Amino acid sequence: MHLTLIGIGTGNPEHLTLQAIRAMNTQDLILIPRKGEGKADLADLRRAICDEMLTNPTTQIAEFDLPVRDEATQEYRQRVEDWHDAIAAVWQQTIDASGKGKRVALLVWGDPSLYDSTLRIASRLDPAPTLEVIPGITSLQALTAAHAIPINDIGAPFVVTTGRRLCEEGWPEGIDTIAVMLDGNCAFQTLPLDGFHIWWGAYVGMREQIICAGPLSEMSLEIIETRAKARADHGWIMDIYVLRKLP
Amino acid sequence: MHLTLIGIGTGNPEHLTLQAIRAMNTQDLILIPRKGEGKADLADLRRAICDEMLTNPTTQIAEFDLPVRDEATQEYRQRVEDWHDAIAAVWQQTIDASGKGKRVALLVWGDPSLYDSTLRIASRLDPAPTLEVIPGITSLQALTAAHAIPINDIGAPFVVTTGRRLCEEGWPEGIDTIAVMLDGNCAFQTLPLDGFHIWWGAYVGMREQIICAGPLSEMSLEIIETRAKARADHGWIMDIYVLRKLP
Ligand SMILES: C[S@@+](CC[C@H](N)C(=O)[O-])C[C@H]1O[C@@H](n2cnc3c(N)ncnc32)[C@H](O)[C@@H]1O
Ligand SMILES: C[S@@+](CC[C@H](N)C(=O)[O-])C[C@H]1O[C@@H](n2cnc3c(N)ncnc32)[C@H](O)[C@@H]1O
Repeated sequence: MHLTLIGIGTGNPEHLTLQAIRAMNTQDLILIPRKGEGKADLADLRRAICDEMLTNPTTQIAEFDLPVRDEATQEYRQRVEDWHDAIAAVWQQTIDASGKGKRVALLVWGDPSLYDSTLRIASRLDPAPTLEVIPGITSLQALTAAHAIPINDIGAPFVVTTGRRLCEEGWPEGIDTIAVMLDGNCAFQTLPLDGFHIWWGAYVGMREQIICAGPLSEMSLEIIETRAKARADHGWIMDIYVLRKLP
Repeated sequence: MHLTLIGIGTGNPEHLTLQAIRAMNTQDLILIPRKGEGKADLADLRRAICDEMLTNPTTQIAEFDLPVRDEATQEYRQRVEDWHDAIAAVWQQTIDASGKGKRVALLVWGDPSLYDSTLRIASRLDPAPTLEVIPGITSLQALTAAHAIPINDIGAPFVVTTGRRLCEEGWPEGIDTIAVMLDGNCAFQTLPLDGFHIWWGAYVGMREQIICAGPLSEMSLEIIETRAKARADHGWIMDIYVLRKLP
């Protein structure tokens, strides 16, 4: 089996690259998770992308139910490992059931390299498939584009991290700029209020996009409230931000 | 004036997104630097992208000579500032000379947010244009895609930095993964040989792409030699790598 992971960007169908569209159209089978990320809209988006971009009549689409994580498993790592095993098993069943298992693709949110486990799950398949990765626009790029900002100062490094890490470890030493993803709790609240600028965005790249920016001291409360309201309105939220130390 | 910075990816014309192609076709004028990055091939690539993707007959292309940095200016920051001033001035002249200055675009290598100064140069224009940024596939994504690797471990942070910084500051504290760009001197040589894995690539995404990966202790010399030879053969090189601490 040849398995292609196709980055699709972050919700704007026009984030698709020509390479991604071409790759979609060379597949026998495209797997689509039902309820991926717990959000029906996102499975719909994958389906809409297939409807719009597929011109190869022999490419088949197969949906599968994404297994849920077993929250009874105490240890975080183990919980994730078990979950990945379960997902790999469901892929395999879905591929076997389709009878079209030569060239198979998965549409990956954003870019397959960034806080995504599709590659790790793929490594569980036995026999091991040959692997191909098509890069896609990340949420971080959609955020910086929406704000029209560079991520880094001239020649300066930056850190990409998660809400959990920012909470647990604080601001990274020797660094002026960080990007924070996977943050369910507005981890910026754990920073001192003064001395930072924030560029925040939710649903970046999507029709629902909300962005705002300013000194953290002025924006913190506004972001917390905007986020809570948007989450209640939509039933789900994905947000991301860049923080920069003020000189 | 409305100025659009369009990320074009890293040398594979198929890195272009639908959004980028649409944006190109809504312009009055697209500016192309002659001898951008000192490499004729790259100006050719921009021209080829325009030839292939432009369907709007009213979109005009204007080439301009990229000013060279004045190496007589001692101080690095000042040298860069002066250079950016000069580039902004040439843009303005080229736009004025074209008589088509309403909607103007620049094609930016990779993504406009990542180690690129186009946004900083644009902020020098007077009167200030309205700005729009279209994200593009970065060299870092082209690298991780070519190697079919995730950039980060599950939930773990990573640092994106430059060769100069890695030399000057060493391995960043509390971090397992770094990506290194803008490295003319194989800065990985300054690390202890044992304890790291490297994924290296030159001309990633391009026809000329070269990649290799392995323990740094085994790859260091090979990369140095491959890089020197490729640079001699092509007359220029762009390379990038990810380093991960071995557990
Ligand atoms: C599991 S990670 C997947 C990241 C994805 N592979 C990428 O390249 O952007 C999910 C996190 O990405 C960020 N994210 C993804 N899509 C987003 C969007 N449209 N708007 C804001 N944040 C988004 C959020 O921080 C979210 O918690
Ligand atoms: C001025 S920065 C521009 C980065 C660009 N904006 C991006 O998104 O990738 C130039 C550096 O990017 C990296 N780079 C750009 N294109 C590359 C390619 N095709 N192959 C390898 N490295 C590349 C190299 O590290 C190079 O020194």
